[in-house]
Amino acid sequence: MKEFELINRYFKGRGITRRDVDLGIGDDCALVSVPENYQLAITTDTLVSGVHFFEDIPPRALGHRVLAVNLSDLAAMGAEPTWISLALTLPSVDLDWLEAFTEGLHEIAEYYNVQIIGGDTTQGPLSITVSAKGIVPRGKALTRAGAKAGDWIFVTGPLGDAGLAIEARKRGIAITPDNRHEVEKRFFYPTPRVAAGQVLRGLATSAIDISDGLVADLGHILRKSQVNAVVQVEKVPMSAALKNTLVEGERWPFVLNYGDDYELLFTVSDANKGALENKLKQYGVEAKCIGQIQAGNGQLDLTLKGQKFTLPKGGYEHFSD
Amino acid sequence: MKEFELINRYFKGRGITRRDVDLGIGDDCALVSVPENYQLAITTDTLVSGVHFFEDIPPRALGHRVLAVNLSDLAAMGAEPTWISLALTLPSVDLDWLEAFTEGLHEIAEYYNVQIIGGDTTQGPLSITVSAKGIVPRGKALTRAGAKAGDWIFVTGPLGDAGLAIEARKRGIAITPDNRHEVEKRFFYPTPRVAAGQVLRGLATSAIDISDGLVADLGHILRKSQVNAVVQVEKVPMSAALKNTLVEGERWPFVLNYGDDYELLFTVSDANKGALENKLKQYGVEAKCIGQIQAGNGQLDLTLKGQKFTLPKGGYEHFSD
Repeated sequence: MKEFELINRYFKGRGITRRDVDLGIGDDCALVSVPENYQLAITTDTLVSGVHFFEDIPPRALGHRVLAVNLSDLAAMGAEPTWISLALTLPSVDLDWLEAFTEGLHEIAEYYNVQIIGGDTTQGPLSITVSAKGIVPRGKALTRAGAKAGDWIFVTGPLGDAGLAIEARKRGIAITPDNRHEVEKRFFYPTPRVAAGQVLRGLATSAIDISDGLVADLGHILRKSQVNAVVQVEKVPMSAALKNTLVEGERWPFVLNYGDDYELLFTVSDANKGALENKLKQYGVEAKCIGQIQAGNGQLDLTLKGQKFTLPKGGYEHFSD
Repeated sequence: MKEFELINRYFKGRGITRRDVDLGIGDDCALVSVPENYQLAITTDTLVSGVHFFEDIPPRALGHRVLAVNLSDLAAMGAEPTWISLALTLPSVDLDWLEAFTEGLHEIAEYYNVQIIGGDTTQGPLSITVSAKGIVPRGKALTRAGAKAGDWIFVTGPLGDAGLAIEARKRGIAITPDNRHEVEKRFFYPTPRVAAGQVLRGLATSAIDISDGLVADLGHILRKSQVNAVVQVEKVPMSAALKNTLVEGERWPFVLNYGDDYELLFTVSDANKGALENKLKQYGVEAKCIGQIQAGNGQLDLTLKGQKFTLPKGGYEHFSD
C-alpha cells in the first residue's frame, strides 16, 4: 500500500472537521486559523516501540496513548486542544494493526474535538511522533514558573497505577486479574485532564502534568518558580487497585516516582483555594491538596504522618524519556 | 547524559530568538503568537536512517536536510517559516555527532529566521521528525488546486542532482570527484526555495515542492486542479554536473522522476507571466518555463523536441516515502 492510499484509507475524511481548519490533509502544508487574542500552544512527544511501550501493546491503546500524552501537555498549560500532526513510522503495512491504531486515535481525537491536519508516514522501526496544538486566551496559560510561598499543591487523581501496570508485567508482581485490569486501563488509556486544565486558568499559579513522576515533576515547578515545597505523602491519592496489590512500604516508589499517569499537578494561592475548589466541584473535577509551597530555591521535603520521609533508593524508573 | 542536560547543551539558548515566541523550550508546551490576518501553515516530515538517508550521512548535513525538507513545504505554500518542533530519536548519545547535527540544524534555522521552540528527545533507532510552522497572509497561500488551462508551468532550478548523488553511491555510476561533490551538495544541503515561495504569492495559481519527482509532483497539481499538462522535457533545467556525467538517454529518469531536489514547481496565468518573471528577476530567483496547463482531468504529456516522449520503464525510485 502506497503512502497516499494509506492516508486516504485511514486518515482523510475520517475524524472530526473543525471550522478553524482552512486546509487539511493533502497539500504541502495544512492551513489553520488561530483566533484573535489567543496564543498557540505547541507540544511534541515521541513514543518508540520497546522504549515507551511494550511491543505487543494493543494498537488501539497505542493510538489512544500517543494522543493522550500530548493532550496532557496542552492540559497542563490550560490550553484547548485543536489540531494534531502525526508522524507514523511503521516496519510494514499491517492493515489490522492500522485499523485498530487509527480507531484508538480517532476515538480520543473526536472526544476532545481535535482534528488530524497532516503528518508523515514512513517505513522504519515502529515509532510515533505527535505534535499537538492548542489555543489559550492571551496571557492565561499556566506555566511551571508561577508558584509562590504559601500556595497549596494539588493533584488531580491517583498516582502509581501506570507504573504498577508496567512493573506487574516486567517483574511478575502478584496482582489479581481485576486489579491488573484496572491499572492496565490507566496505562493503556490514560485520561488527559483537558477540562481540569481549562478550569485552572486564572486561578492556579503553576501547573505541570505528571509524566516523569510526582517528585521529578514537582521538582520542575520548584526550580522554575524558585521555591521549596513540603508534600505529605499520605495525602497523595492512590487507587484501590494499587492499595489492594501492594503493602504500604512498596507503594511509595510507584506513587511518588513512577510517572506515566498524566494527572495534573498544580499550585493555587491561599486566597484562591476556596474559589478553585468550588469551580473544580462545579466542573466535576476531583483534586486533592497534598502539600504547600515554601520560600526557597528548589528543595522538596516529604513527610509521612508528620515525620520526615525519605524515599528508598533504587526505586523504579518510569519508561525512558 | 539525561534528556534535560542534552536539551540544555544543544538547544536551549542556542539559535535565534523570535519576538513572536512567548515561551520557548522548557515548559509543557511552547507558546507563540500568530499575527492577525495571517493563517498558520503546518507541515511534518520524518527522516529515518537507512530509508531517507545513508547511515553514514555527515550529521551536519542531516541537521540541515531535516529542516530544509520541511521549510521546502512551507515555501511551496508561500509561507514565511517561523518555528519548528524537533523530535529526535537517537540510538545512543554521541556528543560529536550531536554537536555536528545541531550545528547544521541551527545554521539553516538562523539563515531562515526560524526558532526551535520544543520537541522531544528519545532513545531508539535513529529517526528525526520535524514539524515546521509558518505564517501566510490570510487567503494568499499557494495550494496544489489552482492551476487553470492556459497557465504556464515553471520550475525554480535544475532537477536530478540529488538522485544522481544517491545512485552514484548505490550503483557506482562513473562520476568525477568535482561532479560528485556538486551533486552531493545538492543532496546533503538542499536549498528550500523560501524566498521564491513568498515572491509567488498573489501571482502563481498553484505550487508544490519537488520531493517525489517532477512527474509525480506535477501529477498532484493536475489531479487537485483537474487539468492536463504538456511538459517539453528538453526545457527542464539540469546541472552541468549531471550533463557531464550522464549521456542524454540516461538523464531523464533523474530529471523527471527522481525527486529529493526540493525545487518549486508552479503555475502562472498567461496574464501574470510577465509580471511574475519581472518580480522573480527583481528578487534574484531563477525559474524556467517548461510547459503549459491544458483542459483535462489529470493527464500529463511529455514531449522531446516536438515528439511525444515516453519515459523508459523501470526507472529509479526516490528514497521511500
